Amino acid sequence: MSSDNSIFVGNKAFMNYVTAVVMQFTTKDAEEVVIKARGKFISRAVDIAEVASKRFLDGKVEVSNIKIDSEEFENKEGKQVRVSTIEITLKKKE
Amino acid sequence: MSSDNSIFVGNKAFMNYVTAVVMQFTTKDAEEVVIKARGKFISRAVDIAEVASKRFLDGKVEVSNIKIDSEEFENKEGKQVRVSTIEITLKKKE
Repeated sequence: MSSDNSIFVGNKAFMNYVTAVVMQFTTKDAEEVVIKARGKFISRAVDIAEVASKRFLDGKVEVSNIKIDSEEFENKEGKQVRVSTIEITLKKKE
Repeated sequence: MSSDNSIFVGNKAFMNYVTAVVMQFTTKDAEEVVIKARGKFISRAVDIAEVASKRFLDGKVEVSNIKIDSEEFENKEGKQVRVSTIEITLKKKE
C-alpha cells in the first residue's frame, strides 16, 4: 500500500481527519486507509476510525487491523523516552 | 475467560495498572489479561500494554488481540453521546 493512504493524527480539528479518511475511500477510491498516531493522540485516532467507519461509511468500510508498538527517542534533555504508537487499518468491505 | 482477568483503565497512577497486569501473569498465573479503556484513557491503555509486555514481561507475553468499538449513552443533559472503547488482550507466549 502506498503511504499516500496514511493519515497521521495530530493537533488539527477532529473533523479534518474524519473528512480525510472518508475522502480517501470516496473520491480517491482507496482500498485501505491507515490511521496513525503517537502518545496522547492515540485516543483520537480511535475516535476518528470509529466515526469514519460507523457514521460516515457504515456498511462500506471496516477495521481490518490494529497494531500497537513503541518508539524510543531522545528528548531535548538527552534522555531516552518511550512513546506508544497505533496504526488502525480501515478496509473497504467486499 | 473470566472477567477477573480484565483491568479497566481510569484515573489511578500509571504503575498501578502495569503492576496489576504483571501480577495477573506472575502471581496469578493467568493465560490472558484484557486491558479495557474508554475515551481519553485509550492512550493510557496502550501505554500500559506496551510497558507491561515489553519492559516487564518481555519474551513472556504478547499482544494477541485489539478491538475498538463505540458506546452510546445519555449524558446529564439528556443528550446522546458516543464514546470510543478499546480492549487489548495480552497473552502468555507458548
